Amino acid sequence: MVKTKHIKLKSKGETDIINITSEVENAVGGAKLKNGTVTVFVSGATGGLTTVEYEPGLVSDLKMAFEKLAPRDGKYAHNERWHDGNGFSHVRASLLGPSITVPFSSGKLTLGTWQQIIFIDFDNRPRTRDIVLQIIGE
Amino acid sequence: MVKTKHIKLKSKGETDIINITSEVENAVGGAKLKNGTVTVFVSGATGGLTTVEYEPGLVSDLKMAFEKLAPRDGKYAHNERWHDGNGFSHVRASLLGPSITVPFSSGKLTLGTWQQIIFIDFDNRPRTRDIVLQIIGE
Amino acid sequence: MVKTKHIKLKSKGETDIINITSEVENAVGGAKLKNGTVTVFVSGATGGLTTVEYEPGLVSDLKMAFEKLAPRDGKYAHNERWHDGNGFSHVRASLLGPSITVPFSSGKLTLGTWQQIIFIDFDNRPRTRDIVLQIIGE
Repeated sequence: MVKTKHIKLKSKGETDIINITSEVENAVGGAKLKNGTVTVFVSGATGGLTTVEYEPGLVSDLKMAFEKLAPRDGKYAHNERWHDGNGFSHVRASLLGPSITVPFSSGKLTLGTWQQIIFIDFDNRPRTRDIVLQIIGE
Repeated sequence: MVKTKHIKLKSKGETDIINITSEVENAVGGAKLKNGTVTVFVSGATGGLTTVEYEPGLVSDLKMAFEKLAPRDGKYAHNERWHDGNGFSHVRASLLGPSITVPFSSGKLTLGTWQQIIFIDFDNRPRTRDIVLQIIGE
Repeated sequence: MVKTKHIKLKSKGETDIINITSEVENAVGGAKLKNGTVTVFVSGATGGLTTVEYEPGLVSDLKMAFEKLAPRDGKYAHNERWHDGNGFSHVRASLLGPSITVPFSSGKLTLGTWQQIIFIDFDNRPRTRDIVLQIIGE
């Protein structure tokens, strides 16, 4: 069985790190499936998904790590062509990846106690985002 | 229902970035499934998968980002042991990861308008590649 | 059909890189499914999954790459708040990601000949780990 849900959210951009765990949990709970996986996927090339212990220290540390990986004010051929200034956003998003897949058992995500699902908006402006949850199971 | 397809391609190596979106779309369309996910996986330890807005600026920016992450001419214990000179290829591939999973709804991938699926060949020589598409849905 | 298996292991932490390919192969073989995917997921925010050619040179090279990406003795807001000294572990784990999804055909993983599945424990102390294998197929 496949069930599709969506999370719509407004993000501030600039490596905005948003905890979407409870939205994913609710979607999986509402799907009335016992065991399976949920694939969490962002439609759009400047967002990414991963997990983290969601606390302000690590939110700040992750931002620093991405700044080091692809500096905001670095030189990007994308910016020279398109002049939208978000070359860094694209590079960060491609390196992190647009999706994660999380198992669930007895209707519950198999996350660790201190492990949350985050969506990161790397774009350089506020965005309205559509995150697709594809729930496959039985 | 599970359907397996393959993309065979020739790549030039040296962080060759290849847009495989239409091949994946065609495979998913041909599978005659409505809703589900496609897992795109490279068999081989020197390739990787992600998404990007596929335009020449970002193709060049991504190459630069990988060169920074694991420099081609850096010092690698792999090279000292095996003398094949592709230590950088392996490190880049492991950091990016060998697969992505993309949902589809009504037979169409849920990609954003400017978001393409890319295969990156990090090896230091041309390769013939087998990319597996595992399509699961109903 | 969905089958859930677990790999329990003891890791040493400090970017301990463990080859779990044969455990995953055995679980998939034992599931008696022909075609599908296995999602390998670590419950916990300081571990990650990817593939590599598992040989001592690359194990060492990957450790170096992660040390460059998020240095052990760097400055982390997480450490200043919680004093557990594993800010670097969290950042490395979030960048790599907590899961990979690997297809199987005729009961066999579609890995390349020199491609192994690895679990990396980034924490700064030994841990007992629970890795979830969610096998979906037919």
